[in-house]
Amino acid sequence: MTVVEIGRGKSGRRAYALEEIGIVPSRRTRHPDEVSIAWQIDAYRFEIPLVVAPMDSVVSPSTAIAVGRLGGLAALDLEGLWTRFDDPEPLLAEAAELGDAAATRRLQEIYAEPIKEELIGRRIEEIRAAGVTTAARLSPQRTVRYYKAVIDAGVDIFVIRGTTVSAEHVSGQAEPLNLKQFIYELDVPVIVGGCATYTAALHLMRTGAAGVLAGFGGGSGHTTAAVLGVAVPMATAIADVAAARRDYLDESGGRYVHVIADGGMSRSGDIAKALALGADAVMAGSPFARATQAPGHGYHWGSESHHPDLPRGTRLKVGTIGTLEQILHGPSTVADGSMNLMGALRRTMATSGYSDLKEFQRVEVVVTPSATPR
Amino acid sequence: MTVVEIGRGKSGRRAYALEEIGIVPSRRTRHPDEVSIAWQIDAYRFEIPLVVAPMDSVVSPSTAIAVGRLGGLAALDLEGLWTRFDDPEPLLAEAAELGDAAATRRLQEIYAEPIKEELIGRRIEEIRAAGVTTAARLSPQRTVRYYKAVIDAGVDIFVIRGTTVSAEHVSGQAEPLNLKQFIYELDVPVIVGGCATYTAALHLMRTGAAGVLAGFGGGSGHTTAAVLGVAVPMATAIADVAAARRDYLDESGGRYVHVIADGGMSRSGDIAKALALGADAVMAGSPFARATQAPGHGYHWGSESHHPDLPRGTRLKVGTIGTLEQILHGPSTVADGSMNLMGALRRTMATSGYSDLKEFQRVEVVVTPSATPR
Amino acid sequence: MTVVEIGRGKSGRRAYALEEIGIVPSRRTRHPDEVSIAWQIDAYRFEIPLVVAPMDSVVSPSTAIAVGRLGGLAALDLEGLWTRFDDPEPLLAEAAELGDAAATRRLQEIYAEPIKEELIGRRIEEIRAAGVTTAARLSPQRTVRYYKAVIDAGVDIFVIRGTTVSAEHVSGQAEPLNLKQFIYELDVPVIVGGCATYTAALHLMRTGAAGVLAGFGGGSGHTTAAVLGVAVPMATAIADVAAARRDYLDESGGRYVHVIADGGMSRSGDIAKALALGADAVMAGSPFARATQAPGHGYHWGSESHHPDLPRGTRLKVGTIGTLEQILHGPSTVADGSMNLMGALRRTMATSGYSDLKEFQRVEVVVTPSATPR
Amino acid sequence: MTVVEIGRGKSGRRAYALEEIGIVPSRRTRHPDEVSIAWQIDAYRFEIPLVVAPMDSVVSPSTAIAVGRLGGLAALDLEGLWTRFDDPEPLLAEAAELGDAAATRRLQEIYAEPIKEELIGRRIEEIRAAGVTTAARLSPQRTVRYYKAVIDAGVDIFVIRGTTVSAEHVSGQAEPLNLKQFIYELDVPVIVGGCATYTAALHLMRTGAAGVLAGFGGGSGHTTAAVLGVAVPMATAIADVAAARRDYLDESGGRYVHVIADGGMSRSGDIAKALALGADAVMAGSPFARATQAPGHGYHWGSESHHPDLPRGTRLKVGTIGTLEQILHGPSTVADGSMNLMGALRRTMATSGYSDLKEFQRVEVVVTPSATPR
Repeated sequence: MTVVEIGRGKSGRRAYALEEIGIVPSRRTRHPDEVSIAWQIDAYRFEIPLVVAPMDSVVSPSTAIAVGRLGGLAALDLEGLWTRFDDPEPLLAEAAELGDAAATRRLQEIYAEPIKEELIGRRIEEIRAAGVTTAARLSPQRTVRYYKAVIDAGVDIFVIRGTTVSAEHVSGQAEPLNLKQFIYELDVPVIVGGCATYTAALHLMRTGAAGVLAGFGGGSGHTTAAVLGVAVPMATAIADVAAARRDYLDESGGRYVHVIADGGMSRSGDIAKALALGADAVMAGSPFARATQAPGHGYHWGSESHHPDLPRGTRLKVGTIGTLEQILHGPSTVADGSMNLMGALRRTMATSGYSDLKEFQRVEVVVTPSATPR
Repeated sequence: MTVVEIGRGKSGRRAYALEEIGIVPSRRTRHPDEVSIAWQIDAYRFEIPLVVAPMDSVVSPSTAIAVGRLGGLAALDLEGLWTRFDDPEPLLAEAAELGDAAATRRLQEIYAEPIKEELIGRRIEEIRAAGVTTAARLSPQRTVRYYKAVIDAGVDIFVIRGTTVSAEHVSGQAEPLNLKQFIYELDVPVIVGGCATYTAALHLMRTGAAGVLAGFGGGSGHTTAAVLGVAVPMATAIADVAAARRDYLDESGGRYVHVIADGGMSRSGDIAKALALGADAVMAGSPFARATQAPGHGYHWGSESHHPDLPRGTRLKVGTIGTLEQILHGPSTVADGSMNLMGALRRTMATSGYSDLKEFQRVEVVVTPSATPR
Repeated sequence: MTVVEIGRGKSGRRAYALEEIGIVPSRRTRHPDEVSIAWQIDAYRFEIPLVVAPMDSVVSPSTAIAVGRLGGLAALDLEGLWTRFDDPEPLLAEAAELGDAAATRRLQEIYAEPIKEELIGRRIEEIRAAGVTTAARLSPQRTVRYYKAVIDAGVDIFVIRGTTVSAEHVSGQAEPLNLKQFIYELDVPVIVGGCATYTAALHLMRTGAAGVLAGFGGGSGHTTAAVLGVAVPMATAIADVAAARRDYLDESGGRYVHVIADGGMSRSGDIAKALALGADAVMAGSPFARATQAPGHGYHWGSESHHPDLPRGTRLKVGTIGTLEQILHGPSTVADGSMNLMGALRRTMATSGYSDLKEFQRVEVVVTPSATPR
Repeated sequence: MTVVEIGRGKSGRRAYALEEIGIVPSRRTRHPDEVSIAWQIDAYRFEIPLVVAPMDSVVSPSTAIAVGRLGGLAALDLEGLWTRFDDPEPLLAEAAELGDAAATRRLQEIYAEPIKEELIGRRIEEIRAAGVTTAARLSPQRTVRYYKAVIDAGVDIFVIRGTTVSAEHVSGQAEPLNLKQFIYELDVPVIVGGCATYTAALHLMRTGAAGVLAGFGGGSGHTTAAVLGVAVPMATAIADVAAARRDYLDESGGRYVHVIADGGMSRSGDIAKALALGADAVMAGSPFARATQAPGHGYHWGSESHHPDLPRGTRLKVGTIGTLEQILHGPSTVADGSMNLMGALRRTMATSGYSDLKEFQRVEVVVTPSATPR
């Protein structure tokens, strides 16, 4: 751990971004077809190590079904448009037509509509009806209020996701969510986060979560660093949380908590790097906002972007480049890492000589300012 | 302290900018409403840890009153337009109409008008009459000549601010300001600076100042580094001066001198970082030049920008985005860290698990070249 | 070796790009005319240490002949247009007319045409007939299938080149290429790569190769880092592979395997740096795409750019600046390092005080982020 | 000295650019009027520590006279237009009218005109006649041929300047310049360079030179790094050469050889940094190309830019901002460090608490990537 003295009164650790990391091939190579990228969490097995992020611009009930059929998992945001409106399609269409200057303000207005509890169950059932694994997200602030509706609807995987989620929320006002007790009593596996340090992750693992989100999510357009000053670069965050997994495995006598990297991965190379640094799977949003089926119509935004008092993200124009299937499995017709994400991952692993994800976590990496041109 | 050898004949310390710093959440979180950001210096208590910088583009008597009512403190520049002209409004309006090429030259002309001593008292009284805490600024060069007028007008907090102010100004010509004796004899608390190193700060603290400005101020448009080659990045400057506060506290048997970070903080995240690095409060200008009430009409400049022989700053177009109240307390309608500065600070502290500013100075930080995109 | 801790669970070595390297003159200087830049590999001697990369935009049979006459070596890509089409000229002309958006897709279509085995021999013979040294390239995947045709046609130097080539390709499906046995049985010298680490290079050297490509090639427009996350900056790759050469020399009792830097050298200064870091020669493509004779008509692309499922490179517009002779030997009429590449190399060596390439590998270098402006 | 391992086969020292350096004020301040920036080399005393670089775009006989009257020294390039043409004014005017694309080629043509020996003496005498100190430059290649004409004309200071000049030029062809013997026999003080390392500088000092140029000169538009790969950042070069001065002082029993920083200083802050790092004076060109009197008519180029075979610099448009007097001594009407260079230097020294140049070499500096925005 490199700690530098910033000034006489303060020191800090040097932390690294994915852009500073390069994967180094070993002395072996393999054929991409002989590589497995399957991932299993709790009782659920996926052909690809990917959770599509709970963001209205990428996950609707129908895209959740499509992603499931393509081998992955998509989490629906239960605090987004699909639980605020019977039919959010006109609003999604409108959001795509807004000028940049007006977008933040109008998103704030649209999302001021209250959540309708009955829609929570209905959306989950729409996805379940298609026979794919269901996942749905609440923020920690609203989990106590709405979780029953989620469980009753038969969700498979419960996602509690905020910018920063801690195992110990201190409050003198309301009774905050006691994560440990809540997860203990729940019958479904819970994925919880974000967090970005060894200690915060270890505490989240002790709550009984099946998976922990490493990173602060937020989508490509998030501005957390500018607005809050909060920033832990992803490479360091993932490698720290992965170390917590290893230590918790020992402490718990064998409970393996999955580390799901969440935030800042918009190209296939970023996904490979996250897994190389120790993640078991990744949560990503922006790559899928480029799908023809994406509800965002070529735009992308996260829940930070419409916070009523303090928006911390912008609506990004990402364009439309191909079907969900192409984006996940190719063939790709572009060379920028935005299509055939899973084919690229297979090739990275094959080129580096690894045959499954767990092995690939050991691949050598280098640190270099020029690893990925921006 | 990392000292690097630049070449065989010279070594220098590695210093860090705010852009290189990221705040790391701890394992706890809180609710923003349960966070206190109050600040007290001498007998004066403020709801927010903010001094608006003595710059003509942001502080007029009326905006000083408005800031005071919103919980902060604004310092009027007693060497600016308000003491050179009975009615500076037409000149402020003209400055906003100048083309960029002509701006420096015309500002030099406008500021060639002599200071009128009688206006010093009148301006301070205008602010006092509103019942808010008053602060006013002189440069060290003019303090001896004008301070009586300032004191007589009943200022609450006296600010002596230059790019670099030292406790020991060496001169063979005129009798320079003896800061120690001056502050001793004065009956009001003095804030003095800028300075950027441990030693310079310690000497300023020994003069009896109530607060020390850490950094060289100068506004977002200052070009001190290009013109003078002088540059100490803010993160290191703040952490060094904070260490001087701690050591002086011991040396003096308990006198706590406030460290006010001054310079280069244009986004809410920068303010949070400055406090995380050890500042007790911040002095900022450019964020308030964007207020509808700002005297600069959407432009921003500091006193460096109109130096008669060696201008060291440019007039910046910053635009107008909302009222002073919105900029300080929200709600924000943009996502770039320029609005709801104090709401953002509360949220950073809450997200990081801290409940007051003194505790927050202990928050963990990381060093990373990619902390804040520019 | 500087190893940094990225996070608690992962460390990586700090690696360096050519852009971060500067050559330092010694205390002697020489005249450029008294410098030798000759290079010999196996029985073949070249006046210049340069292999033009097997890319359709730069090497056709006629440019291969021209390069040979100018003192260098050019390798024809036997999986490119010249073995897929009787007359590729119309397709090369068409590729130069495509808009950027359509280029990747159309290149994929054009290269879908199967390789015609009879053209392999014909192309090599066209070059041989001119009396210059011939070199031709296959990928490791197709070497087993086509190498006989190559040998039968009387190629002088056999190039096996892929993004990453390992001595140990693991496969459960087809019988992979056993490099060691293959090279042993072959009667011509083999150049094989790319590779980027000491260990991978050492294993390639043990196969009996005459030369090893250090780097991942791919041309200026390659996007391997974005698509695969794979990245080892060239300066570190070259210096590592050069160390493998030294250690293998001892291990083998005196076999000197040539290190040919391959990738990312588009300016004369880059070539000098590669040699300064330990390369014996360089393989380069993009500088020659700017020749009036270049088959790419002012455009440049590598084989990665038309991969059917996962393109990892873009077609770059590089323009046309002069004849092959001017680009290699001057006189130059531009100041950006794109002309008189060999004259520049002589001058670098003369300025630094070295008289041949082997000595020049010992020249002092510095590491600095600002070595070459981009 | 920080040496980093680039790869297993090569290590290099970390070197620093002026852009990475910031000057740190001490705990004292002074008034700018009480600062001396006088410089004395051999018998010649100057009010300012500045040599204007021998470049046709800045030094003509008339600007040399003007600079001398303003307290500095200007060196005429004896291999430039003033010794090739009776009246170069029309060609200077033409050069300023050329489009960027044609400039390099046309400059090559213009400078193909042979040097006329009789003009050497005439130009020096024109300057001498005005009563200012004269300095004139030859390259090491032409020194033997033309130095007699220079001495006969009564030059005061002889400048031998090339990109890299060594004390030991190795050649099998012509008898090279033996610097040590040449300088010993000469009756005027010699300034020689550039060089960029401790060892090269030490050897140049041992030739008997009065001053050594630290850096590779070349003007703001030089492209040495791109074309040759040669790059030693200025901060490290100056600090290394200054250390050679100190050690040679001891070795020689008291001979003080002046270190003149040469290259890359286009703003006043850069000049201050060079002196802070140990230079006794600076040689600069581009700031003076902006003078109304500049022969380049708002354009700037060095001798590298018109090399017949390998140009290594571009003609830069720098514009015209004021008189030579304003650029040197102000008043300035811009804030970018391009005017009132000497006033800025005084202020830097005053702000930092130093009263003469020799003391100022001890000022504290920091290393930071963000010292000067580009």
